[in-house]
Amino acid sequence: MGSAREVLLAAASMDGLSVEFGDEPGGAATYLETGEPLVAGALERFRDEYDAVLKGPVGLPEVRKPDGTEAGVLGGVLRSGLDTYANVRPVRLLPGVRDSASPIDYVIVRENTEGLYLSRGSGVRNERAASDQLLMTRDGVERIVRFAFETARTRNGAPGDGVRRVTCVDKSNVLRSFAFFRDIFDEIAAEHPDVEADHRYTDAAAHDLVADPGHFDVLVTENFVGDMLSDLGAATVGGLGMCPSGNIGERTAYFEPVHGSAPAIAGQDRANPTSQLLTAAMLLDHVGAADTARRITGAVEAAYAAGAVRLNPNGTPTCGTKGVTAAVLSRL
Amino acid sequence: MGSAREVLLAAASMDGLSVEFGDEPGGAATYLETGEPLVAGALERFRDEYDAVLKGPVGLPEVRKPDGTEAGVLGGVLRSGLDTYANVRPVRLLPGVRDSASPIDYVIVRENTEGLYLSRGSGVRNERAASDQLLMTRDGVERIVRFAFETARTRNGAPGDGVRRVTCVDKSNVLRSFAFFRDIFDEIAAEHPDVEADHRYTDAAAHDLVADPGHFDVLVTENFVGDMLSDLGAATVGGLGMCPSGNIGERTAYFEPVHGSAPAIAGQDRANPTSQLLTAAMLLDHVGAADTARRITGAVEAAYAAGAVRLNPNGTPTCGTKGVTAAVLSRL
Ligand SMILES: CC(C)[C@H](C(=O)O)[C@@H](O)C(=O)O
Ligand SMILES: CC(C)[C@H](C(=O)O)[C@@H](O)C(=O)O
Repeated sequence: MGSAREVLLAAASMDGLSVEFGDEPGGAATYLETGEPLVAGALERFRDEYDAVLKGPVGLPEVRKPDGTEAGVLGGVLRSGLDTYANVRPVRLLPGVRDSASPIDYVIVRENTEGLYLSRGSGVRNERAASDQLLMTRDGVERIVRFAFETARTRNGAPGDGVRRVTCVDKSNVLRSFAFFRDIFDEIAAEHPDVEADHRYTDAAAHDLVADPGHFDVLVTENFVGDMLSDLGAATVGGLGMCPSGNIGERTAYFEPVHGSAPAIAGQDRANPTSQLLTAAMLLDHVGAADTARRITGAVEAAYAAGAVRLNPNGTPTCGTKGVTAAVLSRL
Repeated sequence: MGSAREVLLAAASMDGLSVEFGDEPGGAATYLETGEPLVAGALERFRDEYDAVLKGPVGLPEVRKPDGTEAGVLGGVLRSGLDTYANVRPVRLLPGVRDSASPIDYVIVRENTEGLYLSRGSGVRNERAASDQLLMTRDGVERIVRFAFETARTRNGAPGDGVRRVTCVDKSNVLRSFAFFRDIFDEIAAEHPDVEADHRYTDAAAHDLVADPGHFDVLVTENFVGDMLSDLGAATVGGLGMCPSGNIGERTAYFEPVHGSAPAIAGQDRANPTSQLLTAAMLLDHVGAADTARRITGAVEAAYAAGAVRLNPNGTPTCGTKGVTAAVLSRL
């Protein structure tokens, strides 16, 4: 996070943009202190006072609630609390990271407020059994599918063949909730004849994102499925340390890397800050500072293209966190 | 299927093993004729009369039931009907298929009778909303986890570092059903100190199966998650056409390729029969004909190692279905 703040402020000052940061503690440490994962009033401030939110990794796997789930996880609190229904996860292969038969440049639009994760904290569990529910509503599916088609119409970047398409990822062959999702997708696709409508079953999507990533432009899917597919996609472009994300609602948006915390390497100058840097750029783009956003993504790309940043097999940068920051700062 | 039958019979006759085939129609075509996806009495015959079942691909995506799900899908009928609770999916990179930093040789043990797919056909759906339930029972989780540890103890093949391990794949940080799964996993792991117990969240597993496949030995997970991860794994070893699977219960077992039907290329001598050949070998191994099983897998490996079989980028063999069959037959 330190890296992203430094780069964001430097890029903004070059463009004469003034940026004010507030700090709102949250996550596992806050839970241990207060019994809640977010300080009082933070949600309201996110919605009413800030222009946007840049979130860092905050979990600690060993801090658990009595039901066995993790206590520091903010996804549920923020995503439903702020109604940020669209989780936007671009997957892009930067120059020099690895060989690929085709360019990789797509966006996963993950539904963020319902699906299986609506059960966060409300599933049932006793000694003999446990269950969670995967729930979809017409309103929820309609808004996420419309968002995906708008993304295909407006985004920078394109798939290998240049065709604007939205791929619906579902398991409609087996599950009624997904058949419902797909039927609504088909209705909304019919309103967007300028964008190709495409379908993959969840298992086939997992296969094709590895075998034929150049095919994809925008994918739209349920919450839990999108969670898995976006980590999978990250692995094909150098790892979780490469992928930013935005959680977008009608009123508020917050931005965070796709990866979680990595307490084992925290503070050791080993983490890859690229995801957090690209996340800062997504935030700037969202609040209307498109030039400053491009300044940052351009500098990140240039640093990779020049070979100033290289990755170890485990995804950490050979030059350390600070080395990446310096390489990007000098190219802003 | 023709290819597998031919190779199975040839290998068996070399070993003086007599094999009798029965035929039981099933799938989309049977549904269109009879309104049921399986002919009457077949389930009972599978259980009481056959030693094992070799299933071919049977679906037709456009044949759907009124609720929107596919009509020819036999998974639910067979897996719950025969209580084949363990879906065993080996993922192995054969020689010459593609470069990999590490050997890939692991087995996904997918729970096959509960989880999200317990809702097959019983989810609720109306105009405004739809839902399916992910349900786990203590008995169901215990038996699949035990099966996974037994697999780690007894299987041929090993991960890159030679350590016997079972990786529990769950989303216990968010969902109570998965926290339940993980707690039971940990209990049973404690009874198997000779096997390393390992954990990955579902999203991290999707990432690591791409980024670090050499780490894995046996993975155990919920039904829907296992469905996605096994297709993902297949993509890393040359595609769905490379991967066999077994559905194993206390009394009965049936074997099938991981892929579905591909009506667009059926009968054109284009499909890769490798998965169906390896599936036949799994079946033979299961019924106690380990030598004949090894004869087939050995011939398949030799055909790849010699370069007699090569794959197009889309996973079909350059020499056609018949070419693969001939290459394997000549190496039995
Ligand atoms: C930390 C976890 C709860 C979260 C999620 O599952 O949504 C994360 O995996 C993500 O993708 O943002
Ligand atoms: C065809 C489909 C119902 C089936 C499943 O989801 O189980 C298939 O994908 C599989 O993996 O065997």
